[in-house]
Amino acid sequence: MKIRTILAASLGLTLASTTLAQVVGKPEDQIRWRQSAYHTLAWSMARIKANVEGTYNKDQVVEAANVIQAVANSKMGALFQPNTGSGKGWKETRVKPEFFKAESRDELGRIAGAYGKEANEMARVAATGDAGAVKAQFGKLGESCKACHDKFRKDE
Amino acid sequence: MKIRTILAASLGLTLASTTLAQVVGKPEDQIRWRQSAYHTLAWSMARIKANVEGTYNKDQVVEAANVIQAVANSKMGALFQPNTGSGKGWKETRVKPEFFKAESRDELGRIAGAYGKEANEMARVAATGDAGAVKAQFGKLGESCKACHDKFRKDE
Repeated sequence: MKIRTILAASLGLTLASTTLAQVVGKPEDQIRWRQSAYHTLAWSMARIKANVEGTYNKDQVVEAANVIQAVANSKMGALFQPNTGSGKGWKETRVKPEFFKAESRDELGRIAGAYGKEANEMARVAATGDAGAVKAQFGKLGESCKACHDKFRKDE
Repeated sequence: MKIRTILAASLGLTLASTTLAQVVGKPEDQIRWRQSAYHTLAWSMARIKANVEGTYNKDQVVEAANVIQAVANSKMGALFQPNTGSGKGWKETRVKPEFFKAESRDELGRIAGAYGKEANEMARVAATGDAGAVKAQFGKLGESCKACHDKFRKDE
């Protein structure tokens, strides 16, 4: 139950997604939508980075952190149905075959859970307007993104 | 001031974006990020549609509505700098030249303000779990998307 709860709470990967979420979209839609969501996260991360490295504007950081939080809690796992391990959205998917393997579930659950936790914390810290704390949390959030990229995303 | 406030409150288009928001990203980044954000909205709209037309799951609708709300309040206008009227992100941008013209500002402000209002209302209604009210608000939100598409987006 614990793993299932973690999965459902964050990226909602593979097993959880097929049982808990309605499947929406053809495989190519799923791949394009998930690539879009990740790039929306990349934009939001770039916005926070610009603020912690340049002139700090609380509103901009809150806006970006709220997008990250909402996407992190949107159960994107529903966009990783078993038939989406290859194929093209905006471009060829970079997901590794390991992502879909049963033996990866525990690790995916840990990675997804950690990401969701750091994303929620990012939104909480952004709302305080404490630029130093935002910078520190931005680092932790970036590490939690990287954990999944390193393990489950192919290099370009 | 009123128009500026509306702009800043929602899509934050053109004039407001150049004065209020830090510009992040090269033109091709801005185009790819905004195409990504719109497709993240399209995914979220498809999720809500699947719920109001099929088995209703409150959590899924809340997740999708929260993404729409966060993106609607993220001041995407910062991704429409004057040098992004043509060019390629994932694909060639479909923004019309009218979008960037000074005489469009009032209408853009109205359209962006209406969209932000309907997106915030969508999140509020989703949280109530009232499927009928969600269906009605989904229609209003879709209309507010369409208002901009009809006026400022080229057909494919």
